[in-house]
Amino acid sequence: MRASFNRQTIMKTIGADVAAVRDGEVEIVLPCSDTLLQQHGFIHAGVVATIVDSACGYAALTTMASEAAVLTTEFKINLLSPAKGDRLRAVGRVVRPGRKLVVCLGEVFAEEPGQSKQVALMTASMMVVDNGTGLQD
Amino acid sequence: MRASFNRQTIMKTIGADVAAVRDGEVEIVLPCSDTLLQQHGFIHAGVVATIVDSACGYAALTTMASEAAVLTTEFKINLLSPAKGDRLRAVGRVVRPGRKLVVCLGEVFAEEPGQSKQVALMTASMMVVDNGTGLQD
Amino acid sequence: MRASFNRQTIMKTIGADVAAVRDGEVEIVLPCSDTLLQQHGFIHAGVVATIVDSACGYAALTTMASEAAVLTTEFKINLLSPAKGDRLRAVGRVVRPGRKLVVCLGEVFAEEPGQSKQVALMTASMMVVDNGTGLQD
Amino acid sequence: MRASFNRQTIMKTIGADVAAVRDGEVEIVLPCSDTLLQQHGFIHAGVVATIVDSACGYAALTTMASEAAVLTTEFKINLLSPAKGDRLRAVGRVVRPGRKLVVCLGEVFAEEPGQSKQVALMTASMMVVDNGTGLQD
Repeated sequence: MRASFNRQTIMKTIGADVAAVRDGEVEIVLPCSDTLLQQHGFIHAGVVATIVDSACGYAALTTMASEAAVLTTEFKINLLSPAKGDRLRAVGRVVRPGRKLVVCLGEVFAEEPGQSKQVALMTASMMVVDNGTGLQD
Repeated sequence: MRASFNRQTIMKTIGADVAAVRDGEVEIVLPCSDTLLQQHGFIHAGVVATIVDSACGYAALTTMASEAAVLTTEFKINLLSPAKGDRLRAVGRVVRPGRKLVVCLGEVFAEEPGQSKQVALMTASMMVVDNGTGLQD
Repeated sequence: MRASFNRQTIMKTIGADVAAVRDGEVEIVLPCSDTLLQQHGFIHAGVVATIVDSACGYAALTTMASEAAVLTTEFKINLLSPAKGDRLRAVGRVVRPGRKLVVCLGEVFAEEPGQSKQVALMTASMMVVDNGTGLQD
Repeated sequence: MRASFNRQTIMKTIGADVAAVRDGEVEIVLPCSDTLLQQHGFIHAGVVATIVDSACGYAALTTMASEAAVLTTEFKINLLSPAKGDRLRAVGRVVRPGRKLVVCLGEVFAEEPGQSKQVALMTASMMVVDNGTGLQD
C-alpha cells in the first residue's frame, strides 16, 4: 500500500501522508498550507476531498485480494465547517466490503493542539479492478 | 470574480485557470501534469473534483448579488472514465438559482487535439453567504 | 422492460406508469395524490426519488445485454423546488454506459396544464448484474 | 413531531411508523410488504430512501427551534445489500446541526428474528425553514 501511495504524486504536491493503516481503515494527514486555499482562506473543498478519497480508497484496498486494484467510481462530500487549523486528518473506513464494489465512509477533522473538529463527511464507492486490466496497487 | 479566483491559491498550485465566464456558467481548464496523479497515472479524482467544484462555485456566484459570497456545502461526483489527456476542462452550470442555495451541475472533459471525452459528472449545492459574515467574493 | 416494470409493485402502490422508452432514456409519470405527501403537503422526496430511480434504472437497462439485470448501487438527489402540481414526470437518461456500471442523470418535473417546473435532479449508478445471479429483468 | 409525522400521508401508505425519538436521532420502522417491491422482489430503493429521509428530517427537527420547519435539500444513498426481511429499521442521526443547514447520517437495517443487516447508508442536508414561510412542523 505504501508503494501505491507513493505513486500518488498529488499527495507529495499537497504535502499529505499516510498516518495509520488498519484493517478496513486508513488515516491520511495534511498540514494546512497557504498553497491549498480557496478564496476565503480555508483549505479548498477539493483538497479536503482529495485526502479523504485516498483514505477511503486505501481502506477499501485493505479488504481486497492482494493482486486487485482500486478505482473510485463516485463520492459525495458534505462540508460541515470551514477547513482551517494546523492540519487535517482524513479517516476512511469500509462500511460494506464487496466483491465488485466497496462502500466507504470518510471523515475529515481539522486539528489544532488540544482541539479536533469534524469538517467533512464523505461516502464513496470503490470499484475492485482485477489485474487483467493491467492496473495494480 | 477574477480577484476571487486569484485568491484560490490551490488553483496556482495545480496550474488551473478560468477559461470562460458566462451568466450561470464557468469553465476552468487544467493542463495534465505529472504532479497531480493517483497511483495508476490518471489525474486524481480529488483534483478533478477541485476544478469542477470551483467552476460550479463561480457559476453560482454569477447569479448572486455582487456583495454575496459563496461556499460549497456539498457535492457528489461520478467518475466516468480515467482522467488523462492533455488537459481537463471543467464546466459548471447553474441548474437552480436560489436565495439561500444554488444547485449546480458540473461536467469534466479530458481533451486532446481533436478529442474530448467526458470523465466526470458533479452535482453541487452552493450556499449564498451574505457579507455580514465578513466573507467576500 | 414492461414485464419488469410490472413486477415493481411499488409503482402500482403509488400510481406511477412508464410514459416513454427510448434508447438510453425512460420517462415515468406519477399523478400527484393525497396519499404520497410529506408534512407540508408536497410529494415526499422519497417518492420523487422512487420514480426517478426507476426511470434511471430502466434507462440503464436499455443499454445492457438482454439477459442482464440492473440494480441501483447509489443515487443522489437534489430537491430544487417543492414537488406539487397535477403530476410528476421523471426522465432518466444514460450518461455513461459501462460493462459493470452505468451512470445516469435523472430529472423530475412538476406539471400542470401549460406549465412544467423542474423539481429534482439525480445522479445514479446502476450495476449490471449478469444472469448467473438468478436475477432477471 | 408526532403531529408532523402524521401529516406525512406517504408513511401511512407504505405502513411506516416512528419507533424512537431521541435528541438528534430518530428511528422509523417499516414492515416489509408485497406492495413495496422492485422487480426482483426486494424493497424498492426509493422506499428505503423514503423512510431514512424522514428519519433524518425528524432527527434534524429535534435540534431546531420549535417554530422552525425542515425541508430536505438533498440526500445521497448507497444501497449496500438487497432490502428484504421482516422489516426495515431506518435510523437518522444529526452529524452537524447548523443555523441554516443540518447535516444528517442515516442507516437502514433489514431485520429478522435474531438478525439485523445494514442495507443502506445515507447522508442528507436538511434546510431550516423559518415560519415566515408559512411552513410548520
